Amino acid sequence: MDDDRIDTGRSETEQAIMDATLRALAKHGYADLSIKNIGTEFEKSTSLLYYHYENKDELLLAFLDYIIDLFVETIDPEADDPDAELRNFVEYVLPPEGDLSTCESVPPGVPEPVADSGSVDPFQRAIFELRTQTVHDEQYRKKFRRMETHMVETVATLIAREMESGHYREMNAEMMAENLMAFLFRSLDVRVTGTRLESAYAMRDSVYFLLDNVMPKGSHPGEAAARDADGNDADYDG
Amino acid sequence: MDDDRIDTGRSETEQAIMDATLRALAKHGYADLSIKNIGTEFEKSTSLLYYHYENKDELLLAFLDYIIDLFVETIDPEADDPDAELRNFVEYVLPPEGDLSTCESVPPGVPEPVADSGSVDPFQRAIFELRTQTVHDEQYRKKFRRMETHMVETVATLIAREMESGHYREMNAEMMAENLMAFLFRSLDVRVTGTRLESAYAMRDSVYFLLDNVMPKGSHPGEAAARDADGNDADYDG
Repeated sequence: MDDDRIDTGRSETEQAIMDATLRALAKHGYADLSIKNIGTEFEKSTSLLYYHYENKDELLLAFLDYIIDLFVETIDPEADDPDAELRNFVEYVLPPEGDLSTCESVPPGVPEPVADSGSVDPFQRAIFELRTQTVHDEQYRKKFRRMETHMVETVATLIAREMESGHYREMNAEMMAENLMAFLFRSLDVRVTGTRLESAYAMRDSVYFLLDNVMPKGSHPGEAAARDADGNDADYDG
Repeated sequence: MDDDRIDTGRSETEQAIMDATLRALAKHGYADLSIKNIGTEFEKSTSLLYYHYENKDELLLAFLDYIIDLFVETIDPEADDPDAELRNFVEYVLPPEGDLSTCESVPPGVPEPVADSGSVDPFQRAIFELRTQTVHDEQYRKKFRRMETHMVETVATLIAREMESGHYREMNAEMMAENLMAFLFRSLDVRVTGTRLESAYAMRDSVYFLLDNVMPKGSHPGEAAARDADGNDADYDG
């Protein structure tokens, strides 16, 4: 593995290869991804793929770096408005607001949760599919460890900044970040696997319960939880 | 697929095949699992495997039913002491209490998180590895959907029973169950993938924060959170 080649900035051609790989992954899924169907999505000669990457494994590691970069760019620890940045980030990961109808319309017997994949960002699906490789690939594991630690620390930084500015109550920012990320990972997981889409909407309520009823100074989690217990959703209209 | 054969009770031989499959999966991982190395773990003739299951796919679907049954049996909605049942269940899924030393001792470069697998129940690892198949296999998706819905509903039932008996405060039991399961899935996920083991211990604190400081009637989440913000763990010694 020539890690230098992977970690360097991307040339125009490398960028085009990454785009082609994402299109191929979205069309064929990780299991059926091949240099051949990546080449089909690539406007230039397939031989260029081999010029830039020795083999499929090396191309996929470069692609993993690429989508991790893209995911990491979805949240900025130095954003002017930390609370707004957190809300933009959770909206990027959570299912679109609404009822379960789109989810329940997944036709039974469809080999992939196609009806849902429309609402799952291809980047997010790609990240999920590549992440399953961590179980038996140390390189993948290291890359995801770095990414997940970065995401938790970025969320914790944004929370801490709102605590310092007096908008959020005093709390363990790191622990709150772990909880938010656990809800977001669960939401992403059930949407990509299609195992329990209701949970993705439950996670949406849970995330906004923290953002609106637990984290803001002067909010009243108890009362909100009581409202929730009465059968209403946690009030997350701000 | 002869689904009847899969859903019927297990004969002594079928049980022995399931045990052999689990041993083979623990040794070789899902990627390298084969009828051959299952046969190696099986005390009787490999031909018996083919007598009971047409092929590896059918054997693995039967194995999935087997480990789902085992996982489902780890929590009983009708347990005499619902709170104790919840605590036993979370202890089964969460990493053992203690510091990160065991996790940090995972030697870099090891192709699998071997050092951690000791602390991850082989059933749990098997469930995680088989679950990744849901992305492109409708049969797997249906089985996991049924299991995850059953687990959430069982946890919600236990919570509701403690609410009725006056031990837990009024809350949305279904939502609390979704949150607990999200923390437990995240804990299991990071332990099996080895991506961010610190998160498994954060999830441990989060689960006990709910069990000890949020759910019990008369508990004071705010004060506990303030203690937590002071840098101490949430008090979960009851």
